[in-house]
Amino acid sequence: MKLTPDANGTFAIAPTPFFADGRLDEASIDALVDFYGQVGCSGITVLGILGEAPKLTGQESLDVATRFIRRAAGRPVVVGVSAPGFAAMRTLARGAMDAGAAAVMIAPPPNLRTDDQITTYFRQAVEAIGEDVPWVLQDYPLTLSVIMTSVVIRRIVTDNPSCVMLKHEDWPGLEKISALRGFQKDGSLRPLSILTGNGGLFLDFEMERGADGAMTGYAFPDMLVDVVRLSKEGKRDAAHDLFDAHLPLMRYEQQQGVGLAVRKYVLHKRGVIASDAQRKPGSSMTPTARAEVDYLLSRVARVDKRARLA
Amino acid sequence: MKLTPDANGTFAIAPTPFFADGRLDEASIDALVDFYGQVGCSGITVLGILGEAPKLTGQESLDVATRFIRRAAGRPVVVGVSAPGFAAMRTLARGAMDAGAAAVMIAPPPNLRTDDQITTYFRQAVEAIGEDVPWVLQDYPLTLSVIMTSVVIRRIVTDNPSCVMLKHEDWPGLEKISALRGFQKDGSLRPLSILTGNGGLFLDFEMERGADGAMTGYAFPDMLVDVVRLSKEGKRDAAHDLFDAHLPLMRYEQQQGVGLAVRKYVLHKRGVIASDAQRKPGSSMTPTARAEVDYLLSRVARVDKRARLA
Amino acid sequence: MKLTPDANGTFAIAPTPFFADGRLDEASIDALVDFYGQVGCSGITVLGILGEAPKLTGQESLDVATRFIRRAAGRPVVVGVSAPGFAAMRTLARGAMDAGAAAVMIAPPPNLRTDDQITTYFRQAVEAIGEDVPWVLQDYPLTLSVIMTSVVIRRIVTDNPSCVMLKHEDWPGLEKISALRGFQKDGSLRPLSILTGNGGLFLDFEMERGADGAMTGYAFPDMLVDVVRLSKEGKRDAAHDLFDAHLPLMRYEQQQGVGLAVRKYVLHKRGVIASDAQRKPGSSMTPTARAEVDYLLSRVARVDKRARLA
Amino acid sequence: MKLTPDANGTFAIAPTPFFADGRLDEASIDALVDFYGQVGCSGITVLGILGEAPKLTGQESLDVATRFIRRAAGRPVVVGVSAPGFAAMRTLARGAMDAGAAAVMIAPPPNLRTDDQITTYFRQAVEAIGEDVPWVLQDYPLTLSVIMTSVVIRRIVTDNPSCVMLKHEDWPGLEKISALRGFQKDGSLRPLSILTGNGGLFLDFEMERGADGAMTGYAFPDMLVDVVRLSKEGKRDAAHDLFDAHLPLMRYEQQQGVGLAVRKYVLHKRGVIASDAQRKPGSSMTPTARAEVDYLLSRVARVDKRARLA
Repeated sequence: MKLTPDANGTFAIAPTPFFADGRLDEASIDALVDFYGQVGCSGITVLGILGEAPKLTGQESLDVATRFIRRAAGRPVVVGVSAPGFAAMRTLARGAMDAGAAAVMIAPPPNLRTDDQITTYFRQAVEAIGEDVPWVLQDYPLTLSVIMTSVVIRRIVTDNPSCVMLKHEDWPGLEKISALRGFQKDGSLRPLSILTGNGGLFLDFEMERGADGAMTGYAFPDMLVDVVRLSKEGKRDAAHDLFDAHLPLMRYEQQQGVGLAVRKYVLHKRGVIASDAQRKPGSSMTPTARAEVDYLLSRVARVDKRARLA
Repeated sequence: MKLTPDANGTFAIAPTPFFADGRLDEASIDALVDFYGQVGCSGITVLGILGEAPKLTGQESLDVATRFIRRAAGRPVVVGVSAPGFAAMRTLARGAMDAGAAAVMIAPPPNLRTDDQITTYFRQAVEAIGEDVPWVLQDYPLTLSVIMTSVVIRRIVTDNPSCVMLKHEDWPGLEKISALRGFQKDGSLRPLSILTGNGGLFLDFEMERGADGAMTGYAFPDMLVDVVRLSKEGKRDAAHDLFDAHLPLMRYEQQQGVGLAVRKYVLHKRGVIASDAQRKPGSSMTPTARAEVDYLLSRVARVDKRARLA
Repeated sequence: MKLTPDANGTFAIAPTPFFADGRLDEASIDALVDFYGQVGCSGITVLGILGEAPKLTGQESLDVATRFIRRAAGRPVVVGVSAPGFAAMRTLARGAMDAGAAAVMIAPPPNLRTDDQITTYFRQAVEAIGEDVPWVLQDYPLTLSVIMTSVVIRRIVTDNPSCVMLKHEDWPGLEKISALRGFQKDGSLRPLSILTGNGGLFLDFEMERGADGAMTGYAFPDMLVDVVRLSKEGKRDAAHDLFDAHLPLMRYEQQQGVGLAVRKYVLHKRGVIASDAQRKPGSSMTPTARAEVDYLLSRVARVDKRARLA
Repeated sequence: MKLTPDANGTFAIAPTPFFADGRLDEASIDALVDFYGQVGCSGITVLGILGEAPKLTGQESLDVATRFIRRAAGRPVVVGVSAPGFAAMRTLARGAMDAGAAAVMIAPPPNLRTDDQITTYFRQAVEAIGEDVPWVLQDYPLTLSVIMTSVVIRRIVTDNPSCVMLKHEDWPGLEKISALRGFQKDGSLRPLSILTGNGGLFLDFEMERGADGAMTGYAFPDMLVDVVRLSKEGKRDAAHDLFDAHLPLMRYEQQQGVGLAVRKYVLHKRGVIASDAQRKPGSSMTPTARAEVDYLLSRVARVDKRARLA
């Protein structure tokens, strides 16, 4: 089942689980997939920035993607295929699609500057992976330092029929969602799924601006699922109440570099993955940081029992 | 009264108030000073990044600083003097000190890369402004793209006796505070005031890590004052409760580009400044964004009545 | 006499002369102006990147520009007014034009990325300085890290009738000159003077591609004048012969950071300026570097006697 | 035969030859190896920035390296293994060494800033590839935007005994060579081969400052070989005479983006490679650019007959 512009809900960005010695932990991949399914995620995204993708060899990347896809058993898996060159991108994209991926995700390389460089890059990327492969456009200026205006995004989407989704994580980005939805209202942009990232930090208002859901790696995807649902049901206060209870922890997780360590720590604590190890070079948490996260969890748990971890 | 390494509490980063036509609004400067005093701020910082400093001429910068200083009537005012060159930096620094400033604040220019370039820059800056001028070192990698390790900060502080304070806004930065306080424990770093920025987004834990207070522009400095006080009194839960109530709004304010518009909007709504206008080129808020902030204010007001604005 | 799109020939980028103690050397300004006139320059550009402009206070900038303009006695002087903000830019631009400048020159600030950010910036700059002030657009990606495509330059020129010249120093940039001249042939771009920078390193071919002349700071502007003339006269081999004789020295001068030291050293050696001092923080030459430049001069002198310096 | 700190002479940076349809042209690899041998190169470097390395899959990279190594039949081949992550770097490094490479070359990833980040990175890289693999440190700030001071280079070399060579292409960089050689004189740095890049643009003086030779991709490696030899023989004027004759073309080749197209064009014209095609996305030359290079070749040929190409 290939991804379409109708996609919505919460796509969890999955970490890649490792053992302490750096080997891939395939059993934890299965556990992650099962967990995401149980909490109501609509799909999974693997090998994103969070997924330590650059630390894998080409073969390992394909192995990881395949393991996620098999276990997902039909639920959509999006595979990050960003690479320094198109040959590696094509190899992984074709391999992942052959293994049953729903789509691939492509971020622009950090050296792109002008509008033309950006649109040319994505046209060439599509030529490389093949026009039959549905793909997600990742817009993440804070980390990638590539700035795409709403008009440039529209050009990319219009030029490339196989682009089915925007992973939106511009910051600030609320007006960008409104602008893109405005383009659709005035007929200048075709249907496009918009899922939002940024660690979920603005999900409350992103939904109100017209996002179709979340695509991020916060360690409580169950909360993201609920906020997306409540927001769609028009239960504004309830959505914000739940969101606000988690915000102190989400903010803590959103710290660059530290974030992945916190996420793996919490997912390990929730019993999902066997180890919170990262492959080298990885970040780690001091005892003080762990205690801070434990304290935050205890505070979240006052409102959301799922955060009550031993 | 010159600033010393004992400085602590909350230093409000003041916006520069303008009329809609771009002229300086001096009456609102006075109102800001009075407001900061009433809510318990220990000091004021002017002409920071938030203060639209680059939009002022050299003479206007000195006029603005002088107006703040006079009205503050003895309470410490820190004046941002970052400039592309040392001649302009010196002129403003000497002028501000002559007018009664407590200290100046210096950020590194964005092109600095190596440890040596950074330490050399600050040595030259001190030579330019004079060794008798106390100054605040601004560490703000996210915006300035200059990365100073704890060891480099120690070198700068050690090399330059007139450096009395660190405006800390590395992100993530909690471990950096711990590292610097560790240096002081092991005797390798002399006393140094550490006030934290980043829009206050991590103030709760920054205080616990050893910060002396806050130096940021959040539109509720009264809350910052309270959190700093509660934290020093050891009332951890109470500090977090108040902090968490404001976090959704603080997060909204922290969006780059949009943030200043939100702050001026809220300060105007609180009756402090006469207009929320920015001098060109400025950011602005859409009606939707204003409604979002109003909604956030109403939610904060459930816990903190000071946010109950008409 | 204001600058027009007909401007051509060689505009020397003038260094700002200082004494060893950092004071401005006004007599050397006069000597520079006289020298540039004697060797056939069509105009002078002051307070460019080469001119140590950021090291001057606002008042000093205006004083330097005024001194150059008065001595030039009618020959066109272009004044660099790039500044972090529009208030300072306006003050210097209006002051310089009142003092008799022919035009001002504006470079984009390094943080601009998208096509829209760039075109918006220049529209706002023109609004700030006034539409009556002719100006030169500086396109220097290597140093400024702002990339303007030919199409974006055309938009800027079309949007702003007061833009009369492009200081072209993209690298590589030959195709850009051809593209802009192509726009003029197909009627989509109005007349525009194009003078080229990049230390003169590609002047030979830039002239053949359609440049109107040179605007750079090479210490032998007399050679630039000759190459521009020979090229216009169609004496291709002669132009290249002279150019090639200087290229080893030009290449040496083009080293970032070191370049200004070399230029001041040679101009001092030619008897034009009284000292090769830079205001702090400045670069300097080691004895080995000075000997290398002396050796290069002796080699140039085999073809061009003007390089025969004691 | 593994590379040692005694390495010297000219190491040609080899392009990767492709057919017009993007397939690897293995016969041209053999021809390149033979050509480099005939003109007196001491070694070959493959899969560098010039070698379009990011456009190859992992398997292709190893295939290309292996083909070069086999044909070189004992002459040293250095294999670029820079990669976004250590797993891919290790795979290629071990594979290349198993195939008989003399060493690998590692450039720092562009996001490194502080001295500690840089030294930590290379320590981790050595851990990844194994301490038994000799490697070349690439210092190329202009393209990589990572700045390593002489002191940092000394730290890297001292920390990692397997580092045997510096590929020096800082710009300006003459004083850096002098500084490193100075460290060796004062005993604070162990023996280290220094070969210089930058398209050869400063080779004349780099040799005089103490470089051991050249490592760059200029399309006349025969000239590099001669200049290195003449310089070592103390024939200063002769070295500069030959160098200067080529400088106009070298300068043309050094244009970023265009450079590779020019090099492949000239190597094709010299009869070495079968096609000047680049794999997508590639740069190309306009007819005007080709005519300019032809003209430059004809001018070089007045001094150096090897440039006389039909």
